[in-house]
Amino acid sequence: MTLSCDAVTQGQTDLDREAIVPEPPVGDVTQAVLEVARRAKLAARSLANATRATKDAALVAMADALVASADEIVAANALDLERGRDGGMAAGLLDRLALDPARIASIADALRTVAGLPDPVGEVVRGSTLPNGLRLRQIRVPMGVVGMIYEARPNVTVDATGLAIKSGNAVVLRGGSAAQSGNEVIVRVLGRALESLDLPADLVQSIDAYGRPGAVALMHARGLVDVLVPRGGADLIRTVVRESTVPVIETGVGNCHVYVDATADLEAALPIVLNAKTQRVGVCNAAETLLVHEAVADAFLPTALAALAAAEVTVHGDERTVAAGDGVLVATETDWETEYLAPEIAVRVVADLDEAIDHIRTYSSGHTEAILTRDLPSSERFAAEIDSAAIMINASTRFTDGGEFGLGAELGISTQKLHARGPMGLGELTTTKWIVNGDNHIRP
Amino acid sequence: MTLSCDAVTQGQTDLDREAIVPEPPVGDVTQAVLEVARRAKLAARSLANATRATKDAALVAMADALVASADEIVAANALDLERGRDGGMAAGLLDRLALDPARIASIADALRTVAGLPDPVGEVVRGSTLPNGLRLRQIRVPMGVVGMIYEARPNVTVDATGLAIKSGNAVVLRGGSAAQSGNEVIVRVLGRALESLDLPADLVQSIDAYGRPGAVALMHARGLVDVLVPRGGADLIRTVVRESTVPVIETGVGNCHVYVDATADLEAALPIVLNAKTQRVGVCNAAETLLVHEAVADAFLPTALAALAAAEVTVHGDERTVAAGDGVLVATETDWETEYLAPEIAVRVVADLDEAIDHIRTYSSGHTEAILTRDLPSSERFAAEIDSAAIMINASTRFTDGGEFGLGAELGISTQKLHARGPMGLGELTTTKWIVNGDNHIRP
Repeated sequence: MTLSCDAVTQGQTDLDREAIVPEPPVGDVTQAVLEVARRAKLAARSLANATRATKDAALVAMADALVASADEIVAANALDLERGRDGGMAAGLLDRLALDPARIASIADALRTVAGLPDPVGEVVRGSTLPNGLRLRQIRVPMGVVGMIYEARPNVTVDATGLAIKSGNAVVLRGGSAAQSGNEVIVRVLGRALESLDLPADLVQSIDAYGRPGAVALMHARGLVDVLVPRGGADLIRTVVRESTVPVIETGVGNCHVYVDATADLEAALPIVLNAKTQRVGVCNAAETLLVHEAVADAFLPTALAALAAAEVTVHGDERTVAAGDGVLVATETDWETEYLAPEIAVRVVADLDEAIDHIRTYSSGHTEAILTRDLPSSERFAAEIDSAAIMINASTRFTDGGEFGLGAELGISTQKLHARGPMGLGELTTTKWIVNGDNHIRP
Repeated sequence: MTLSCDAVTQGQTDLDREAIVPEPPVGDVTQAVLEVARRAKLAARSLANATRATKDAALVAMADALVASADEIVAANALDLERGRDGGMAAGLLDRLALDPARIASIADALRTVAGLPDPVGEVVRGSTLPNGLRLRQIRVPMGVVGMIYEARPNVTVDATGLAIKSGNAVVLRGGSAAQSGNEVIVRVLGRALESLDLPADLVQSIDAYGRPGAVALMHARGLVDVLVPRGGADLIRTVVRESTVPVIETGVGNCHVYVDATADLEAALPIVLNAKTQRVGVCNAAETLLVHEAVADAFLPTALAALAAAEVTVHGDERTVAAGDGVLVATETDWETEYLAPEIAVRVVADLDEAIDHIRTYSSGHTEAILTRDLPSSERFAAEIDSAAIMINASTRFTDGGEFGLGAELGISTQKLHARGPMGLGELTTTKWIVNGDNHIRP
């Protein structure tokens, strides 16, 4: 399973727009959402010390229930699709929103995969006996209540719930108005599955019915919600970061760079650049800017530009790049800053490694940067001086992914430095607790 | 060294008051503070890959410079003290603010202690070779720029700088107007010491001159400041949490509980309760509420209340507690919620372990709770079901401390769950970076 940034498109948030459904008064909404969070916190207690066997059984029961309720889910999803078509939703987004029995089966399978992963809870992270005889253990425990704010992707509803439950947490979901009908049924189905195992249905709750004010209330439920993970376009993430008093893990925005060094193997460099840019364009680990050392610009750029053109990639280049290929547009400052998430790339010739590092440090979103080089000191300086979550040395940026990294599951890719950086697995949905055993110790 | 919550008093923040110095227009302040943060970010690059030897030399040079400049620092501090006295500052706060050569020597020694600690940077946290041959390492790297917002304690200026530099970070300090003159000199002395080793003085900068709007600008310097650590009273911490878009680590508020179980060794329980409440009253790991199982209430309470009275501790009790001792005040809801930080305690008789756990889960700030018991299942349930940073089993709450836990240094005690929980050492001022070595790998 991966909740990676697949096909995230910027500007898809409806947090800044009017919701489609009528909304109750804001004060009532706040109280209602806080009540949801309180119930989640209470429900989380029942899972905090649950055995792995209990949690895995819950995941399998949820998977079975989704498959058994496929017709009901597809019918609700049809309402969302109809509303989307009426509202002029783009074809790509409609496709992302659409569910059919095969997709539901695949979403259910992802839950079974998570059931097969090791349980992060209970791990002893550190431990020692202190000089005074106190026995100290730092153990991994669930966060408590995880909030998710995301957009129009019903699979995230299930994936996020699976990861939260497996790591012992309750989840409060805000999936956006576009997927509201389908999500409502999915959440009900998942809750019933939990109840069938005598677990509280409140472990998975949606606040979609409370619209945008509900999302804002969730962002201010500090003390009840332990962490908030926004998943979606840059606008949504910015809004959540700005508004939230609940601690946020920022995910997903990837203005990723590939730097072709003076000593790069140019034959190998070309497929890496193409893979990083074109293997999948709408994802956060796709390359958005190509930097080329001027010593190899003449040898590399014409071929690279031709190959990008053949792959129907629009190129925005600096002066030397424009001169090196046909149909290259003139890059502006905006291009260096842009995460295209589209068959577009910015290309710049740099004087040396320093200029490449400076460019990346200036414009990168801190996700993933690649250097293609045969020079060991260059690779080491690049890895040391670039301040991003992942550094690729002679490999495509596309490998920054929880699945690829062997984490088994991925809740997102953190581009902040606090708590989690890079692909987040189940462990990142936990915190720790110190347990100290004494023999009636008092502090002198 | 510890930056623990010693003698923190609630309501000491001047973030919500007018600053004493006149302030420039807000727009200018914001630009000035962002410029400070930008310089800090640039300076941090010079330290990110510095060897431990370089960083330790910087700490020793700073310690030497403080001692050599003691007269200058004391003279500046005298201005702060005079302003404080004129403004009616309480005697305890004046004492906390005061510097003399002996205190400066002790602050300098703390820097030398940090120099002796292991360097967290460079540790390989995880690593493996993936099935496709990619070599993966997750290594510990500095955060970058650490912001500190604190109050009227000049030693924090030095301690925070020492911890930040040792872990490879730049620091931006906002120490509050009450200590402004002394802090200004201290920061200048520390910067000169860094420059004497060809390190940038911008590694330690103060924004005290920009008053309250400067502090607010720092809270919004997301992207330039990587983490903000507020240190001080509950009001200050609340303000920073509410205002900040920079990720915050919440520290220090400790409404700690001691629960005397039915099977507790009552002779041992009494000194633990007294130690937890009275060994030092103004600290976050001091006990604020005592819960007593009703089976031992008659045997324990009269003695405990007499001992607390003898120690001049004011007791706010529930009905049974009031009946069990002389001079016990009637506890209100507020008492269960209050972190007294004073010789005061709330006392309640509970029916059983469940009621004790429920009480703590309702009122605790999630810092430290102790159970005194001889019953193994009770101790295990307490440790599993209490959702706090530290659980003490037959030991005083006062042991929750970076120094006591053997972390060597402490930046504060985190009461949140993200990134750090409990005492924070040097490692908590770092993040990680994934470095992936390939052989021209592309993603299939």
